[in-house]
Formats: sequence, structure tokens, C-alpha cells
Amino acid sequence: MSEREAYEVVPKGEDFSRWFDEVIFKSEILDERYPVKGMYVWLPYGYELMENIMSIMERLLRQTGHKRVYFPSIVPESVLSREFRFIKGFQDSVFWITKLGRQDAPEKLALRPTSEAIMYEVLSRWISSYRDLPIRIYQIAPIYRYETKATRPMLRVREVAFFKEGHTFHATYEEAVEQVNLEVWIYKSFYDELLVPYIVVKTLPWDTFPGALYNYDIVTIMPDGKALELGSAINFGDLFARTYDLTYMDEDGQRKNVNTTSFGISERSLAAVIAIHGDDRGLRLPPKIAPIQIVIVPIPTKDYEERIMEYSREVKSTLERSFRVHLDESEERPGYKFYKWEMKGVPIRIEIGRNELERREVTVFRRDKMEREAIPIDKLNERISEILKDIERVLSEQAWSYFRERIFHARNMEELIESVKTKVVSFAWCGKEECGHEVEEKGGYGLLGYEEDALKGKGEKCIVCGDEARHRCWIGRSY
Amino acid sequence: MSEREAYEVVPKGEDFSRWFDEVIFKSEILDERYPVKGMYVWLPYGYELMENIMSIMERLLRQTGHKRVYFPSIVPESVLSREFRFIKGFQDSVFWITKLGRQDAPEKLALRPTSEAIMYEVLSRWISSYRDLPIRIYQIAPIYRYETKATRPMLRVREVAFFKEGHTFHATYEEAVEQVNLEVWIYKSFYDELLVPYIVVKTLPWDTFPGALYNYDIVTIMPDGKALELGSAINFGDLFARTYDLTYMDEDGQRKNVNTTSFGISERSLAAVIAIHGDDRGLRLPPKIAPIQIVIVPIPTKDYEERIMEYSREVKSTLERSFRVHLDESEERPGYKFYKWEMKGVPIRIEIGRNELERREVTVFRRDKMEREAIPIDKLNERISEILKDIERVLSEQAWSYFRERIFHARNMEELIESVKTKVVSFAWCGKEECGHEVEEKGGYGLLGYEEDALKGKGEKCIVCGDEARHRCWIGRSY
Repeated sequence: MSEREAYEVVPKGEDFSRWFDEVIFKSEILDERYPVKGMYVWLPYGYELMENIMSIMERLLRQTGHKRVYFPSIVPESVLSREFRFIKGFQDSVFWITKLGRQDAPEKLALRPTSEAIMYEVLSRWISSYRDLPIRIYQIAPIYRYETKATRPMLRVREVAFFKEGHTFHATYEEAVEQVNLEVWIYKSFYDELLVPYIVVKTLPWDTFPGALYNYDIVTIMPDGKALELGSAINFGDLFARTYDLTYMDEDGQRKNVNTTSFGISERSLAAVIAIHGDDRGLRLPPKIAPIQIVIVPIPTKDYEERIMEYSREVKSTLERSFRVHLDESEERPGYKFYKWEMKGVPIRIEIGRNELERREVTVFRRDKMEREAIPIDKLNERISEILKDIERVLSEQAWSYFRERIFHARNMEELIESVKTKVVSFAWCGKEECGHEVEEKGGYGLLGYEEDALKGKGEKCIVCGDEARHRCWIGRSY
Repeated sequence: MSEREAYEVVPKGEDFSRWFDEVIFKSEILDERYPVKGMYVWLPYGYELMENIMSIMERLLRQTGHKRVYFPSIVPESVLSREFRFIKGFQDSVFWITKLGRQDAPEKLALRPTSEAIMYEVLSRWISSYRDLPIRIYQIAPIYRYETKATRPMLRVREVAFFKEGHTFHATYEEAVEQVNLEVWIYKSFYDELLVPYIVVKTLPWDTFPGALYNYDIVTIMPDGKALELGSAINFGDLFARTYDLTYMDEDGQRKNVNTTSFGISERSLAAVIAIHGDDRGLRLPPKIAPIQIVIVPIPTKDYEERIMEYSREVKSTLERSFRVHLDESEERPGYKFYKWEMKGVPIRIEIGRNELERREVTVFRRDKMEREAIPIDKLNERISEILKDIERVLSEQAWSYFRERIFHARNMEELIESVKTKVVSFAWCGKEECGHEVEEKGGYGLLGYEEDALKGKGEKCIVCGDEARHRCWIGRSY
């Protein structure tokens, strides 16, 4: 196998789905060959990448007063079944434990499909007075769903390995509304840092998370033009609280229902990063989350090997206080290393050969633009900082223009029916349910959600009935 | 309830077991009231504490070249059952998934009781040549064992929430031996940082981890004089590799078996910290792992409330660059706050009232010695650094002297039989199996392990046969 072939993948534009699978395997993020379908092994490089992504989320959560907890993975059927009044859909996808060693379990036990049920059960003992509220907790831990649709790494899995679920508890409905707005802010900040473009939509009443009053979804668009839900912020009002007897004594001496919200993200965040920024040579990682920001590749020349290696180490120690640097001292040939680190998406490669040694400079290669420049060693730190910032700018701009190419505002039903085949499409909507349903029927896909009052006063007419439109509503194929 | 009563616990010396349960609940580490026996909810304070503990372990693991990975929680029976050739004992404690939604699972699926089986299965595809070795990986993720003995929080649980398991893969037996020694070094460094005393013993051949050639155990002693195993470092040689066809092509063109090791710790580390350092007022946390190192408690005096609060904030901002500081602005009375933060084991409390305000000093209270001193604000950072170091020294010294009080070197069988009732006892051993068994029989407990050659050339005689002793062997009651 030639150096190029080892890291060759199908072009992204030719077969996105295969490209995605090949890239996550060749860049050593996941090993897909696990003997349970829909479950994957996270390799060191992929794990570190997810840790960097999750640490951004954790910083945002801590800043906004959320505390990390851990609840067990196992939930008794009796507790979970109270939730089933709302969440009928989950029943078909629960992993059930029925045997303990050689014995039958006295009661069926579920692997958590999500943690509302068990948290509410326990929280009902934590909350007695208005003084105990608000409570904002989250955990990062796997959840389990026996997905019956075709599984896909990171996108549709049976063990969601990196599930961040936040749950909050409030005295009043108004506070819960504010909290959900805060959750949307957290998501927007998070995806801004990942340089992932998105729209935020409110789901349609007939499509809302079961048991919820309303929820917002963060939606991005994959290279194949299909919408991908990246996170939800859900206002349950006091619906769940009623099921779990979650009440508190208010200042006025009245016993009242607690208002609750929840919000979650998963490794789909990384799937979006890979899919949106990646190219035909593999990953292109945003510098903030790249496990390695700079890789140094020495180019040995006869008789200069040792001096080039020494100089490479000097360059490494110059950089490692400010950046995550790796010096590739392995015995592979430079060409092989180039392809490897391009595949792994390292934002900057530094090449050091005899010329660089003699001039006390380095050649800096940018993964985003595949461009080189020479930099003297005494200007290196400063210039690298600038380049990393510029890589962020470029990746973000490319991603947003890529995103805009995949959305379309349809002015009439014909345009909608045509454009929805390849894009995510918005249209003007009056807000009436029957008009929404008609678009779903004619468009052939479900509505993704709508932006409330986005068209208010703009004079646009509902694409169906021609009444005045208030909302921008979205439709598209989706994951 | 008075302020004192809210944070009162049974004296540690009177009923250690009840003290332990009361302290972990009142200090808000765990909520034990989870509806599945042997599983617990980790509260924010407890979670943060475990995170601080695990980050020490992670630092040591990274320094020594171990990489973090994640393997799914679910293992098919066919994979696990190959391990059962060795690990018969696990069979009775496996949580088995037999139903997926409403359907029967085509094959029984286990929640991992440990990850050897599944890792070996997968690693057999990662390893083909000597160039792929060594591999050193670890994960921090729950494991599940249906313990049939009485469960105890952190000590005997059915969901080990913080299981750190390391697995390594080597070309030669000698490298595996070196690795196991490195693992012991990691554990010793780790427990030194936690200020937890220990002995390191090699387990007896008839007591070794199933499928292992030998293993070392790190053992501490709890306040009730019972031994607690805190970690294991296991050399499997090529035994596991043979079961899982884990082979590699060596430089000499020969196909050879891989040599493997594994090592694990759990939340028992925290149990030891709590049990060994705690006192009748609750936790006493080593500064390195304390979620809060300094709590500031304002003591309001009439007409000075606002100025005292302002000064408290100034003190906080003076300290927070170097330390983890919390200013308790809640409306509780100072006495209540004192008891609360003592229970939660915060190493230093700063009290600020009118006197302190007027003299621009603070009163510093040390949790370890329950002693106060006045410190001027401009000397504060420097002095706090010294005090935190001294707290470490005091906790460590107290713990080691406490430990030494609970061990005893028995010179003859009568001393052994008597002392083993309350202590962990060592004795001189020749190394013959029958002598070991006789001590177990007469002593009434299993041997904990032995220190190889610790008595070599010292002229001590085997406590049973009177032959020359080489090993110091240990016996005691244990958890």
C-alpha cells in the first residue's frame, strides 16, 4: 500500500455516508467493529476529542450554575413505567435486565433510556420548600436505546456514550421559561465555539417531546442536505412533577407543583464537526478542540538527521507552553506522516528540514487552506497564535456559507416541493395547524420546527392559505 | 432541631459503620435512598470530590503513557463466556439483559463486570506485529456486579460508579513484570497524595485473581481494624492472550502470545479518605482534593453587616487566584455554617466579624486541629499556603500512626490468634503452602498477602514450622 492509499477515503461529495465512516475509522476516532450493533469503541484520539468538546460544555454549565451529579444506570420498571404514561415510544427501545447471575430478577430493571424518571423519583425527596429551589443538575453518562432503525456511528447509536443531560427544577413557570432560554443560549455558545452553524426552532405542538409543553431544537445541516438535531431544550411545566409528586411549600404556605426543564446533547456534536469541517483528506479540526494543535514533522536529510531532530525538539519546547504540540519522531517517512496528520485534522503542521535548520525558521502548513509559509523561530509563537485564530475564522465562514447553500426560503408550494429534495427549506406560515399539516403532506417530510414571530409584520403570506404569516417554519429530510 | 443536631453524627469510635453512613449522607456525598439496592446517587459535592481524586490518578496515568479509551457497557454472552473459563466467580453476579423492548434478545447480553473479555476481543484486531506493542489503555466508567453480600456505599456496591481500569499489552513477560511494578508505583504515589496509609502485598498463589500469574494488592486498614483492598495490579502473563488469540508477529518472524496486565481502583479510594481522616464532626479532607479549600463565614454584627460582607468579598478575591474559596453568603446563622462546613471537611474556615474588619485581619480556623489564629490580610496568601501544607503533614502523620496502631507483628501463634481479633497482623513465613494454610485455619481468616523477601536474612523463623522465614505475611479480617 502506498503512503497515499493508507489514508485515502472516498471523496466527500461523492458518497458522504461512506466518507464519514471511513474518516472516523482512519482518523482513529472510533473502532466500529464491536460485537454489539450500534455500540462503538472510542479510541484514544476520539476520546480526547470528545473530552475537549465536553469541557467546553462543562465550562458553560458551571458558569450558569449547573452542578454535576451521577445517577445509577439502572432504573426499576416500577419507576420507569410512571414515565411511560408520557413516553410511550421509549417502551420499544428499552434494554431490560431480567436475570441477576443465575436467578430471575424480582422486578425487571431497565438501562436508563434517559434519566427523567429516576431523577424525579429521587428529587421528590430533595425538594420540600421554595428555599430548596431552583436546582440545576447535569450528568455526563451513557444512555441506552435499542434503536431499530439502521444504526450509524455517533448519529444513531444504541449506547450514547457521551450523553450530557441537564435537569432543572423551579418554583414558577416563568422561571422555567427563563431557564429554557438560558439552555438555548448555552447551546448557541457551545456550537459557536465548535464553529458549527445551526438554526434554533421551536417544535410544532404535534411534534413536541412527549410530556413537554414545548421544546427548542438546535438543528444543523449535514453535507447531504439532511437536517441533524443537535440538542433539545424542553419545558415540561409541571406535567412531569404531577406524575412524580414533585411539590414544594411556597412562601405563602401553599403546596405547589415544581416546574421542570431538561436539555441534552450527545456525540452528535462531534459528528457535526467532522461532517461539516472535514474534506477529502479527512478531518479539519477547530483548534480549540484539536487534541493536537500543531504536529512537527522533521524531514531528515542525509548527514543532517541528528541536527534536524535537535532543532525540531527546540521548536517543540518553544511552542509547548502555549499550544498542544506533538513531535512525530516515529520511523515512518515524512510523506506518510503528512497524510496521517492531515487525516487526523491537526490544524497546523510544522515541517523542518535542512533549509529550515540553516535559516533558523520553520515551514508552517495550514490544514484548512493547505497552504505553506516560512516563519523565523523568534516570531513563531506570535505568528502561530494569529494563524490559529485565522483558521477558526476560515472554518467558521466556510461552514456558514456551506450551511446557507443548503437552505432555501420557498415562496410557494411548487418551490417547496422541489427544493426539499436537496435542501432544508423554510416557508412563511400563519400558525394554523391545518396549514402545517398540509405542508407536511405535500412536502413529503415532517416539519422541523418554526421560528416564532420571525416574519411578524414583514408582509409575507402563509404558503398554504395566504393569510398573514408570523412564523418562519422549516421542513426537510432529517437524520 | 438545634444547629448542632443538624450535623450531629454518632461518634466514630462508638459505631464506625453507622458513623460512616451518617457522614457520607450529612456531608452530601451520596444519597443512599436509591430504589435499587447497592446503587447510589452521587451528589454535587461528592461528585466533585471524586473528580478531584480521579484527576490525580489521570495525571499519573498520562505521565506514564496510558491513554484513555471507552468501551461499551454491554458484552455479548459469547464473548464473556470465554473469560468464564477463568473467572467462574463472576457468573453468579452478572446483570443479564434478555429483553430488547418487547422482544427477546437473540443472545443474552451482560453489563460488564470488568472489561477484560471485551477489550481482549477487540484488541486482537489492533495487534498484529511487535511494532504495535506495548499498548497501555484505561477507562473510567461504571462496572456492574450483583453482589450478594450485604452492600455498603462505596465499599460493596452493585454499580461501581468510578471504576478506573487499566489494561496493558506487551511483547514479553519481562515487560509485563516491569509494567506491574509501574502500576504499583502509580498506586503508591496516588495514595500518598490522598494521605492514605497502605501496605503492598503479593497475594498467595491459592488466592490470586483468577486467570492471573500473580497480583499485588494495595491494602489499607479501616477504623474498625479490618483490612480494605484499595487496588490490584495483575500480571496475566499470556494466559488471557491464549484464550482470546492475542498474538503478534515478532521481529524474528515468529508468532507469539501477547503478555497482558490489568489494574483497577474505585470509589473505595474515597471511602478510605473519609474513614481514615474523618472525626466526630465529619469529614477532614486533604487540601489537594477538597472541592472547597477555604470557606469564608462572615459574622455579622449590628450596623456592620454591609461592611463585613464587603470585607469578606475582598478577602475572597485576595484568595481565589490561588485557592478554591467559597464565601458563604446564605442566611443561616454562623454557628450553623460552622457545623456544616466542618461536616463537609473544608480544611480552612475564615471567620470575619467586626474585630477582623477593623484590624484588617482574619481569623483562620484549621479543621484538622480545630485551632484558630489571627492573620493580617497582607500576609494571608502566604500564610494559608503554609497552613495547607501543614494540614497535609498533620493528616498524613495522624493517619500513619493510626495505621500503625492497627497492625501488629505476631511472634508466635498465640499472639497471632489473639491480635487478629482487632488488628491486621503480620508474621514470619517460610513460604511453604502448608504453613500458610495452617495459619489461615488457626487464625480464622484468610491471608491478605505477603511481602516477598522482606525477612530474608533477618533470622526470623516461620511461625508454623520454625524453618528460616523469608517473607512477611499478612492476615486479618477484611471488607
